[in-house]
Amino acid sequence: MNFEKELQERVACTEEIIGKYLPKEEGFQKSLLEAMNYSFLAGGKRLRPLLMLECYKMFGGDGQIVEPFMAAQEMIHTYSLVHDDLPAMDNDLYRRGKKTTHAVYGEAMAILAGDGLLNFAFETACRAFSMEGAERAGRAMQILAEKAGIYGMIGGQAVDVEAEKRKLRLDGEKLLFIHVHKTAALIQSAMMIGAHLAGADEEAVRELEKAGYAIGVAFQIQDDILDITSTLEELGKPVGSDEKNDKLTYVSVYGLEKSRQDVEELSNQALEILRNRQERNEFLEELVISLITRRK
Amino acid sequence: MNFEKELQERVACTEEIIGKYLPKEEGFQKSLLEAMNYSFLAGGKRLRPLLMLECYKMFGGDGQIVEPFMAAQEMIHTYSLVHDDLPAMDNDLYRRGKKTTHAVYGEAMAILAGDGLLNFAFETACRAFSMEGAERAGRAMQILAEKAGIYGMIGGQAVDVEAEKRKLRLDGEKLLFIHVHKTAALIQSAMMIGAHLAGADEEAVRELEKAGYAIGVAFQIQDDILDITSTLEELGKPVGSDEKNDKLTYVSVYGLEKSRQDVEELSNQALEILRNRQERNEFLEELVISLITRRK
Repeated sequence: MNFEKELQERVACTEEIIGKYLPKEEGFQKSLLEAMNYSFLAGGKRLRPLLMLECYKMFGGDGQIVEPFMAAQEMIHTYSLVHDDLPAMDNDLYRRGKKTTHAVYGEAMAILAGDGLLNFAFETACRAFSMEGAERAGRAMQILAEKAGIYGMIGGQAVDVEAEKRKLRLDGEKLLFIHVHKTAALIQSAMMIGAHLAGADEEAVRELEKAGYAIGVAFQIQDDILDITSTLEELGKPVGSDEKNDKLTYVSVYGLEKSRQDVEELSNQALEILRNRQERNEFLEELVISLITRRK
Repeated sequence: MNFEKELQERVACTEEIIGKYLPKEEGFQKSLLEAMNYSFLAGGKRLRPLLMLECYKMFGGDGQIVEPFMAAQEMIHTYSLVHDDLPAMDNDLYRRGKKTTHAVYGEAMAILAGDGLLNFAFETACRAFSMEGAERAGRAMQILAEKAGIYGMIGGQAVDVEAEKRKLRLDGEKLLFIHVHKTAALIQSAMMIGAHLAGADEEAVRELEKAGYAIGVAFQIQDDILDITSTLEELGKPVGSDEKNDKLTYVSVYGLEKSRQDVEELSNQALEILRNRQERNEFLEELVISLITRRK
């Protein structure tokens, strides 16, 4: 398999699928819809919907019911970035080399665009209730909501924000909580939903939850590493921005070497789970490997 | 029927039901959960969950499946107020005589508390998938998402915000759009979900959607009227705050007399729908009447 070529093709396919679910930019609320679509189309790796689709295929899924959930998962990821970039939060004017939503549409509209994306994610996922396999949509919706919510991503975000505002000295435990909730939760969600919608049993879904944990934490540590070591050109955001913001990262707590070791160890844990199953997806395994070696 | 006494009792019952679904204030994300519960418990009429419960009873519902949806509906209402009060939006420090969420917890935590409430609304509604009557939960979830979303409440909010920021001169059509979407949508949602969960057919659900439209718009016009005529003590917020903010209201477009006439006409439309059905709920009809004569 030519992984890079395969990845490019599958990301393009993912882009096409999720793009179908965007709202048309019309009506009195046109600016809102423009701001939402601007945020959604500002790029990104599409890692979450791609993971969902690959886990769906891994368990033999070949229907359409995964599509609204893929779009919903990416909308939730997007809204979290829009709100994260707000002046009251990280106050970022650029992301991936493009102006952030509030930088273009103003703060009020960015708040509403984020709200709109989160709500529209659930509205989009609701389409599954009238599709083939609808009997699995309820559990999928539950996973989507839980992992994105106050015991998932938002929970992690809140702890992160509070630590920064109060300039709290984070210990390893709290930092891991942030990484697990802020980053791993949506990756777990994507993988679990893909598997469940394809008919995987609850035991398999729980295995993918563990794999998603390892992948998500590894992915975030890698992010922390890249923030220190990468160049502006490769990353599309100022290098060392975490350090500049005096933000505590995995690297600043554990050092570069241990951080790299942990990324590798976690990735191996995830691979072991994926390789030990009867159902296999070679591309998915390659994708996990690529997350360790990524340069941006 | 002693309506006032009955109302008090049913609101208390509603409070008790929805209160059961609040998150426990514990864990690393404790501040987030406190901010959410503070916002939720800051008072309010509980009109939406009460309407949902009464429509549920009207169609013979006597199960528990309506409960998570009642809580979800009020969480969505609450989050919309939390975000609406933010400095970038209406910048209000008080609501119902109490400090707003961002005034107490700071702007970043208020954004996250709003996000948390919106997401937790869907998470809470998902509980219905494992309750008796679960086969109706999907459609109820769809109504909840649609009416709260970009073609419902958030859509109205966006048009309102944009008009204010750009100091646009609103015409009657755009003002009605705002009232219908920003206010009526959640009332429609509450009534439709209550009826649907009790087993009402789609035709009945659509009738309640029309009633909810009339009630919602009447309710909002009444709000505009009260803003002009009420006293601070009765309302719990500064009188004439809309006027002070140079906000265009129904009263400023159509005048006080026509506004009062329209409230009465819309209320009568709603009552006609409710009274013409075989299923009746006397208390619900009294509640609609009380909305015209309310003083706060």
